[in-house]
Amino acid sequence: VFVSYVNVLVVRWKGDEIVTFCASIGVLDSGVGGLTVVREMFRQIPQENVIYYGDTARCPYGQREPEEVRRFTFEIMDFLMEQGVKMIVIACNTATAIALNEARVRYSVPVVGVITPGSRAAISATANGRIGVIGTEVTIRSEAYVKEILRINPDLYVRGKACAEFVPIVEAGLSDDPSVYRIVDESVQDFRADEVDVLILGCTHYPLLQSMIARSLGPCVQLINSAEETARDVSAVLSERGLLNQNNSQANHRFCVSGHLERFEAVGREWLQRHITVECVKLD
Amino acid sequence: VFVSYVNVLVVRWKGDEIVTFCASIGVLDSGVGGLTVVREMFRQIPQENVIYYGDTARCPYGQREPEEVRRFTFEIMDFLMEQGVKMIVIACNTATAIALNEARVRYSVPVVGVITPGSRAAISATANGRIGVIGTEVTIRSEAYVKEILRINPDLYVRGKACAEFVPIVEAGLSDDPSVYRIVDESVQDFRADEVDVLILGCTHYPLLQSMIARSLGPCVQLINSAEETARDVSAVLSERGLLNQNNSQANHRFCVSGHLERFEAVGREWLQRHITVECVKLD
Repeated sequence: VFVSYVNVLVVRWKGDEIVTFCASIGVLDSGVGGLTVVREMFRQIPQENVIYYGDTARCPYGQREPEEVRRFTFEIMDFLMEQGVKMIVIACNTATAIALNEARVRYSVPVVGVITPGSRAAISATANGRIGVIGTEVTIRSEAYVKEILRINPDLYVRGKACAEFVPIVEAGLSDDPSVYRIVDESVQDFRADEVDVLILGCTHYPLLQSMIARSLGPCVQLINSAEETARDVSAVLSERGLLNQNNSQANHRFCVSGHLERFEAVGREWLQRHITVECVKLD
Repeated sequence: VFVSYVNVLVVRWKGDEIVTFCASIGVLDSGVGGLTVVREMFRQIPQENVIYYGDTARCPYGQREPEEVRRFTFEIMDFLMEQGVKMIVIACNTATAIALNEARVRYSVPVVGVITPGSRAAISATANGRIGVIGTEVTIRSEAYVKEILRINPDLYVRGKACAEFVPIVEAGLSDDPSVYRIVDESVQDFRADEVDVLILGCTHYPLLQSMIARSLGPCVQLINSAEETARDVSAVLSERGLLNQNNSQANHRFCVSGHLERFEAVGREWLQRHITVECVKLD
């Protein structure tokens, strides 16, 4: 049983005892990719509690039917709401492209996605007005980035490309494997001829392949990691809504996955530079 | 007569005609300083309409009684609300320190201030954990920056200093005057002995003195101009609230002041790199 008080304080009965704690920020992704956003949140708003859900058993989302992605996303958001979160971050480009607008109507807490922050950073960064985007098939087919960028500035050139193999590579923990470089290099080579000066990593898994992508495209193409920009948005919205954690005690985080614990723990430890405890929570 | 439709579209009767237009973002300052925020907004969210109010006749706010600053701020915000704005930016540190929390309760539109964004940028930027803040007397006495920074990270050292002469210098259009350098240099020299590695320009007028401050403190002290960070917050909040302008027509801006038109026009032209038309609007 829980009572949420203006979305900031959560009160729970634990047997006979009453426990109060500061509400967490819910973060969801199809797998480990959203940890890139969490890392930035730890750096920018270290006092905030985070509860993360990685749907590793059903990952990748990027080649699924939009209706299925929508259903999975709302299943996870329902679970996060039951934990009494004060905000939800859809740290998955595919889920953002499909479900963000509906989620904002459906849930009472603020919902932040990853596409607008990344688009904004790309527009700031480009000098020649030519922007590339890589993402999953669903994200690229939705044209969410193209629409968002052209809405802000219709004079820009934007070209998207689906890189279906990247998420399975990252989820399998192969980000450092030299044999992966050939796949990465082939996937992004079109952008060289295209003379883009900015490439959006339009999937939160891709920052884990960032050094290979950078090596392939060279120093003239700036890579946009939307994780940093998204964490800034989270901080801005918390502040404007009066939802920043006022409590200075040690932050408390939870990590939940639907699949294997060990692989997620290993990526989490490596990426967040700290030990994390992972719970298995099945939603379907 | 006007009707505001979910704060995005404004409908006005002009004689027999009905005119609809996209709601503006209201920006207020005691004078010209808030133009530093407007310049960043023009760069980051160029499709948004802005209505600016500079209370130049009653400037500076920084040495007034808090109750007076509060009253002036709400007078201006009431005026902006009458224009059908969809958001208000308090682009004045003094007014933010005094009136932000109350304004968020008082008005139905989102209200963004300048203190949290600047604090956040300073925390990200410091390497040695020592932060300086310069601002008006009211801002420094309110300790708004110190409280905000220590709330996010209680382990930092923060020292504030009031620079009462800076706003009058900027409002008089003397930002480029070599004789001003001595005043600037004397005002900030304490921070050298203090070994801060970050100095927050805690007044939106101060970026107009930025090059002199930088010359005085040298390259080891990074200056934080909260204007850029504030514009990002505006963009994040608009996006999260679904208030971004969807209309791609040329943006339309209004500039209103309570004092002299010519001086404001000159600073505006110089700072925004475009011609602006200024109206005189008295509120008291």
